[in-house]
Amino acid sequence: MTNSRIAPWASPQAQRRLAEVEAAVSADLSAAGVADTVRKALDAHATQFDDDGIVLYAGTNVLSPAAAAVGGHAVSNRPSMGWPGEKYQVGLDHLDTLEVLAPMLVASLMEAGFAEVRLQSATLANLAVYTAFARAGDKIAVLPEFAGGHASHHVQGVPAIRGLTVVDLPYLPDELDIDYGRLPGFLRVHRPRIVVVGASLMLFPHDVAAVRAACDEVGAILVYDASHIAGLVAGKVFQRPLHEGAHLMTFSTYKSFGGPSGGCVVTRDPDLAERVSTVVYPGMLANYDAGRLGALAVTAAELAEHGADYAAACVANARALGAALFERGFDVARHDGVFTRSHHLAVDALPLGGGDAAAVLLGEAGLYLSGIGLPWQRIDEGLRGLRLGTQEITRRGFTPDDQPAIADLMRRALIDREPPERVRADAVALRRAVNDR
Amino acid sequence: MTNSRIAPWASPQAQRRLAEVEAAVSADLSAAGVADTVRKALDAHATQFDDDGIVLYAGTNVLSPAAAAVGGHAVSNRPSMGWPGEKYQVGLDHLDTLEVLAPMLVASLMEAGFAEVRLQSATLANLAVYTAFARAGDKIAVLPEFAGGHASHHVQGVPAIRGLTVVDLPYLPDELDIDYGRLPGFLRVHRPRIVVVGASLMLFPHDVAAVRAACDEVGAILVYDASHIAGLVAGKVFQRPLHEGAHLMTFSTYKSFGGPSGGCVVTRDPDLAERVSTVVYPGMLANYDAGRLGALAVTAAELAEHGADYAAACVANARALGAALFERGFDVARHDGVFTRSHHLAVDALPLGGGDAAAVLLGEAGLYLSGIGLPWQRIDEGLRGLRLGTQEITRRGFTPDDQPAIADLMRRALIDREPPERVRADAVALRRAVNDR
Repeated sequence: MTNSRIAPWASPQAQRRLAEVEAAVSADLSAAGVADTVRKALDAHATQFDDDGIVLYAGTNVLSPAAAAVGGHAVSNRPSMGWPGEKYQVGLDHLDTLEVLAPMLVASLMEAGFAEVRLQSATLANLAVYTAFARAGDKIAVLPEFAGGHASHHVQGVPAIRGLTVVDLPYLPDELDIDYGRLPGFLRVHRPRIVVVGASLMLFPHDVAAVRAACDEVGAILVYDASHIAGLVAGKVFQRPLHEGAHLMTFSTYKSFGGPSGGCVVTRDPDLAERVSTVVYPGMLANYDAGRLGALAVTAAELAEHGADYAAACVANARALGAALFERGFDVARHDGVFTRSHHLAVDALPLGGGDAAAVLLGEAGLYLSGIGLPWQRIDEGLRGLRLGTQEITRRGFTPDDQPAIADLMRRALIDREPPERVRADAVALRRAVNDR
Repeated sequence: MTNSRIAPWASPQAQRRLAEVEAAVSADLSAAGVADTVRKALDAHATQFDDDGIVLYAGTNVLSPAAAAVGGHAVSNRPSMGWPGEKYQVGLDHLDTLEVLAPMLVASLMEAGFAEVRLQSATLANLAVYTAFARAGDKIAVLPEFAGGHASHHVQGVPAIRGLTVVDLPYLPDELDIDYGRLPGFLRVHRPRIVVVGASLMLFPHDVAAVRAACDEVGAILVYDASHIAGLVAGKVFQRPLHEGAHLMTFSTYKSFGGPSGGCVVTRDPDLAERVSTVVYPGMLANYDAGRLGALAVTAAELAEHGADYAAACVANARALGAALFERGFDVARHDGVFTRSHHLAVDALPLGGGDAAAVLLGEAGLYLSGIGLPWQRIDEGLRGLRLGTQEITRRGFTPDDQPAIADLMRRALIDREPPERVRADAVALRRAVNDR
């Protein structure tokens, strides 16, 4: 019997794992037993990722310690609806402080005039933008999935919630970028309401000014999804999307940004800001989670002081890791000989059994990352690439000098095919050595 | 100058308060200064609400201490996409435990077969249900705003995100309930895809079986929004919506339920569950916040053990408070001489200057609650009522014997018009006496 009780419609593979966990957790379902099971799971995860793991997964980070220290989770249960001065609830004057600090600091940091900070995720930030500027039946144009276009740009995600049609922007796989030559004609044919650039794999900047010029010809709103590179934007590294012409920028606050979970929309235009704000409340939110805002404000203030150094360190680590992997025989994605201008790297893992299988093997070896589609892959190749991000190892204290050691571990696991548990012992030793510095 | 920088489009009243706070927080925008400002605001709020306040606001609660103790916020930054056994990320086996425990325990507790627990709010739970069972241009039927119908049921909220048309169900103000006699004919005329019952003010149960029978005639999906009364449903008090015939139930996890912030959808039907699950991921979520799930699982396990007692205590407090307010001259909403069958109460505040003004005055007196529309009010009367909920004072240790003292404080502030600061001193003393028991 491998049927899951909680999701009998899931795939056979998922149901096998679900049934296994369902049986394990059912041993003691008393409140005390459940609290014990939860604590053990959280502790084991913390040991694995926070103490021992080399986390190269591109979409995560450790929360800034100063942001974690202010806490605030107790106010997550305190509804706060509407602007300070006209809230539905009374007695929340102290939360006004957080509700002002967070958007003020985030807007300033991201070179915007206005920041909507109440949304729970970047996916919902994208939905807010779609809702503000398009309606059911309208078209949006986004980066193809094979170029890292995120689920929240495509029909399997929030565009379908809004009833939108989605078309892929013209793309040049060999350039790892939009086909700027074909873009104006493409937009004239399709006339999308919204053009979304920015992706889940961002090795090189887009030519935002060129995209904006093409958008202006057809009256499209240009949205830059900086979910992954928000921390670099904060550090004025990589690119400055609003300065370069994006109407709006959406982003996740817990990836390279290093803050609490959540999503933001920023813009320089007060009219666009007002439309987004009105969609967010009372459209998408009644209450929001005020418990995040203090940590977000502190993160933004820290990035204003140290963000340039942090961003530069992330990029330096990525370039050093790219070079070290290349030297060890990995097929590192590159353009004009450069591996990356961000904290991301991509490795073509076709000769290593594909990105998914390689990620599983590395996970057993104590290095955590994920597969990714690559622009030159065939549809039947699964996720052909491996995606790496240095935003967390940089926070943990890894430097460019440590990158050859990481590349060695990856070579041993993926190319030399050493037993992963042997590699893992050395991965943990490396992580602990860095922890102890 | 009272222009706000962060929201120059807000009302004059909001801009005045925003500008005041913007000036205050700008005194020190260094990272250390911001951390200090945030900490002071959170500390002051905690003193006001958690130590000193008598919180009668119906839509909040204190998080169960056992749930708070398991923590888990560090995993809020760990994306976990897809079912255990087929996640996009590797190395998250320990989170599988939380992802199985939470839906298993919530489904069992709520007399459902299946629980979708990943959504960040009940508003988004409602959007998930609308998306799964209706599309742009379709109609839904909901309780009128004057009967406590929530923003997430009406066109100012998530129905508009999905492009839905909204009609008000027939309602009998004097009965404080749906007009069951007119309902079948109404549904035959309007043929809504979805009927939503349950509201932000729930003094008496609905006849769910009657609504379901009328829905079945026209093929409508019946959704019961138990955001406010989920804790009573968990305790098998008030009503059992799925048992009585609702296809789906949505609810908030931090109000009477007493858990972390978030929203759930539960159902007995695996086909409906699958459709909701698929809309939620990968439709509305990429990552979700795994940091909530441990606390949610512990809360559900606690409610399975003690939920009936807690729910009964909430209702006993509400009935005692209703009687005490009535004795002191308040116009407490009632039906057939009964003030409530839930933890909610409503007071007609028209003779007290209206619900909003009365709530502000009570806030100054250290008792926190909100205004609410009443079914018999005119549209130009603002929020004519005061809404009270006993779910938090019950957690804090207040008993029916304490309710006359609360009613005395309310009488002094609202009827005797004593200066609120004098009342506040006695409200704080009462709260501290209960804290010290």
